[in-house]
Amino acid sequence: MRLVRYGRPGKEKPGLFDDEGRLRDLSGVVQDIDATLLGARALRKLAKVDVKTLPLVRGNPRLGVPVKGIGKFIGIGMNYADHVAETGAELPTEPVFFTKAVSCLNGPDDPIRLPKGSRKTDWEVELGVVIGTRAQYVSEDEALDFVAGYCVVNDVTERAYQFEMGSQWDKGKGCDTFGPVGPFLVTRDDVHDVQDLDLYLELNGKRMQTGNTSSMIFSVAQIVSYVSRFMTLEPGDIITTGTPPGVGLGRTPQRFLKKGDTLRLGIAGLGEQQAEVVAFPN
Amino acid sequence: MRLVRYGRPGKEKPGLFDDEGRLRDLSGVVQDIDATLLGARALRKLAKVDVKTLPLVRGNPRLGVPVKGIGKFIGIGMNYADHVAETGAELPTEPVFFTKAVSCLNGPDDPIRLPKGSRKTDWEVELGVVIGTRAQYVSEDEALDFVAGYCVVNDVTERAYQFEMGSQWDKGKGCDTFGPVGPFLVTRDDVHDVQDLDLYLELNGKRMQTGNTSSMIFSVAQIVSYVSRFMTLEPGDIITTGTPPGVGLGRTPQRFLKKGDTLRLGIAGLGEQQAEVVAFPN
Repeated sequence: MRLVRYGRPGKEKPGLFDDEGRLRDLSGVVQDIDATLLGARALRKLAKVDVKTLPLVRGNPRLGVPVKGIGKFIGIGMNYADHVAETGAELPTEPVFFTKAVSCLNGPDDPIRLPKGSRKTDWEVELGVVIGTRAQYVSEDEALDFVAGYCVVNDVTERAYQFEMGSQWDKGKGCDTFGPVGPFLVTRDDVHDVQDLDLYLELNGKRMQTGNTSSMIFSVAQIVSYVSRFMTLEPGDIITTGTPPGVGLGRTPQRFLKKGDTLRLGIAGLGEQQAEVVAFPN
Repeated sequence: MRLVRYGRPGKEKPGLFDDEGRLRDLSGVVQDIDATLLGARALRKLAKVDVKTLPLVRGNPRLGVPVKGIGKFIGIGMNYADHVAETGAELPTEPVFFTKAVSCLNGPDDPIRLPKGSRKTDWEVELGVVIGTRAQYVSEDEALDFVAGYCVVNDVTERAYQFEMGSQWDKGKGCDTFGPVGPFLVTRDDVHDVQDLDLYLELNGKRMQTGNTSSMIFSVAQIVSYVSRFMTLEPGDIITTGTPPGVGLGRTPQRFLKKGDTLRLGIAGLGEQQAEVVAFPN
């Protein structure tokens, strides 16, 4: 299933895209796309609904973050060897993680807003993993059983805040609008092989990032298992799993986001985001 | 006001401690101690309630985290010069911050659980700041107007996870039970000078940490203003503001928490936590 939340910010309703790509309303069937719906049993029940009976939604409403009530938004750093090389860092021997503030969550096509005075806001297309079932010290073998599904994430990052302000990376990872998620939450059963998905990102129509999840240093199963040793993962938590090469920081010359830029990014089967870059209003 | 949430985990009710130190039930007056109650207007309204009309609560029920629905749990690192010295780091020129996972939140007297295989779990008594009003790019002068009140936090930290696993600090900051908060949320009007509060921590009855918030490198107002440049602070967010010297990492020889240890820690006027250290069940 390709689950979405559509409507005005804060007023989103649950929906899904059918096989013909038409948006249908789910609000007669479920309250919202949240922790109560993400477990295996609830998703199996939802999958039994006859899609053709769901009302079609007119027009092209805005899409929101496809999961409500996200408690934790964890990012994995340095998880593609070719991206690690472009940043000049050493290959990690175990997963590096950091946190994105939940207040940075943004609809997939909502504007990305440069913080005041930002000079180094950068893009990062990534595979997001949505937890479906409480996971604590889970093994790699069983880790994917705790996953509800997958989504596109842009792990937007201010590089000066991340690296040049004497702090932990979180300072550059959680600015408002720095966490576009969606369009869809694609349930796990609809993703054939999560370690063979093409990712791409274009800036103003020009290809910047090209990758495939087969190049991850640590697989999704390894990441879920690993993080669950350091904190209990709850339904609705999201882990974004690192970016392939082609970020602005790694280019010669470096290229960061400016007001008026447009980004198009996506993952095969998980949909596409299109966002405009805006400045903080004066 | 000294606001609390009391009762079994997940079933807490709102309450307050009156001037005689008796617990009274607030559930006839407010739904819970959450974002809707933390703004200046709602708190002023609550302060008008005649405390003597509130039902007394019998016995000594467990206390929970005094705020429900905490969205972000931000920690400031290296904010007391004498603590920075004991860690061997350099003085920061601007606030260092990191994130504690919201799943680590723990009642003030709930057991602190060592993660599996932990060898370096450490204590940190800290002043917690609870945001009352949405704060974005607020000045230092106005910053305290956005604060609902203050609380005791133990910023429990696994030092090996923090420093020796090739990652950001968050790896050692957010383990389950690593965020005891409370007992009280003391509203801002009841704290005469937030930059002159004594802090202390005892391990098995022996004093380990002694400090005063006057020794902070960055004041509460500076911290709230600073963090609000990097993310919008929402009502119910907590910022914990750094620890004075005396942590286990800084002792010779180093001393970390073991099963059976007991901690007693508090801040003048903000109450005291007493917690036992337990091991992860096998």
